[in-house]
Amino acid sequence: MIGPEIDFLISSISKLPGLGNRSAQRIALHLLKHQNRSLNPLIDALKNAKDKIVNCKICGNIDTVNPCSICQDKKRDINLLCVVEDISDLWTFERTGFYKGYYHVLGGVLSAINGIGLEELNIEKLVKRLKESKSKEVILALGATMEGQTTSHVIAEKIEKFNIEVTRLAQGVPIGGEVHYLDENTLNTAFNSRKKI
Amino acid sequence: MIGPEIDFLISSISKLPGLGNRSAQRIALHLLKHQNRSLNPLIDALKNAKDKIVNCKICGNIDTVNPCSICQDKKRDINLLCVVEDISDLWTFERTGFYKGYYHVLGGVLSAINGIGLEELNIEKLVKRLKESKSKEVILALGATMEGQTTSHVIAEKIEKFNIEVTRLAQGVPIGGEVHYLDENTLNTAFNSRKKI
Repeated sequence: MIGPEIDFLISSISKLPGLGNRSAQRIALHLLKHQNRSLNPLIDALKNAKDKIVNCKICGNIDTVNPCSICQDKKRDINLLCVVEDISDLWTFERTGFYKGYYHVLGGVLSAINGIGLEELNIEKLVKRLKESKSKEVILALGATMEGQTTSHVIAEKIEKFNIEVTRLAQGVPIGGEVHYLDENTLNTAFNSRKKI
Repeated sequence: MIGPEIDFLISSISKLPGLGNRSAQRIALHLLKHQNRSLNPLIDALKNAKDKIVNCKICGNIDTVNPCSICQDKKRDINLLCVVEDISDLWTFERTGFYKGYYHVLGGVLSAINGIGLEELNIEKLVKRLKESKSKEVILALGATMEGQTTSHVIAEKIEKFNIEVTRLAQGVPIGGEVHYLDENTLNTAFNSRKKI
């Protein structure tokens, strides 16, 4: 005896990543109880996003302008291009704020299990972009996973002829990490890449 | 350099119960990537709910009709009235489906810490309702917490003159629960309320 409108709302919410039926119920109820404070702003935000957001034709980022405001930003360092797996990684870089170059969003990493091959990724555009660009360094900021590293190597091979320095993120103990919590692989990597103090 | 539309969307989502900034980011990105499959249905569901949902003037439930479809349902058992803390509890009862009586939603439980007194709860209407109703049993289906039990006792006192049986949910080992995981209070309660097999 829960109405179809509420059921539809709960099921729409429960399909979002990381949410199950219980949390969707809780969120739906919160929204219905707090229309002015919560439901209306959310509807506005969603409609706004829906109407205005487009994919950047250069880097694959999403924004309200195309090319995106990062690609249009002339103040950034033209020498640096940072390749990320997903837009969320780009957001993480932007939130920390230390990086001042440009980006290229792959849209995933190579994965045999998930059936993601070269065609599924935004790699061809990256190669074309580097051919024509003035970048001096490409940072392959992909995850330290098997898939991320494989993807890095494949990209590095494809662009080695361009005379651009290709780098990847350092691997080791995460800041704040305690040694006795580290897995073997991380400890091994951190040990082998030890640095002079 | 994340646009204001996306920032507004992430912040609207992050204010929902149980969600932080990270999960809000993940959900926002999912919505923006899957407009047809995810964003559009969610906007429809929210608008639909916003336009149609009202509070039931009898029991405090939310529905598209007023009185709600449960209060209007003549096939339910007129003898039973189940008092719940929140609409989510009503939903839980309705999903399990074994209960066929009517409901009364309190909208909370008495709590000195949270500053919730009698006036904040839907108790006066409950008393008025019971005075005029044919209910034979009131089930106080409140949580087995200090606040829930206090609220149950206060309500029980207020309606004792009505010659209606007042019951509460049984307390003990939850189904599937293992004894060695039980807290002392639950074990004590379960032991003292032990039943013949």
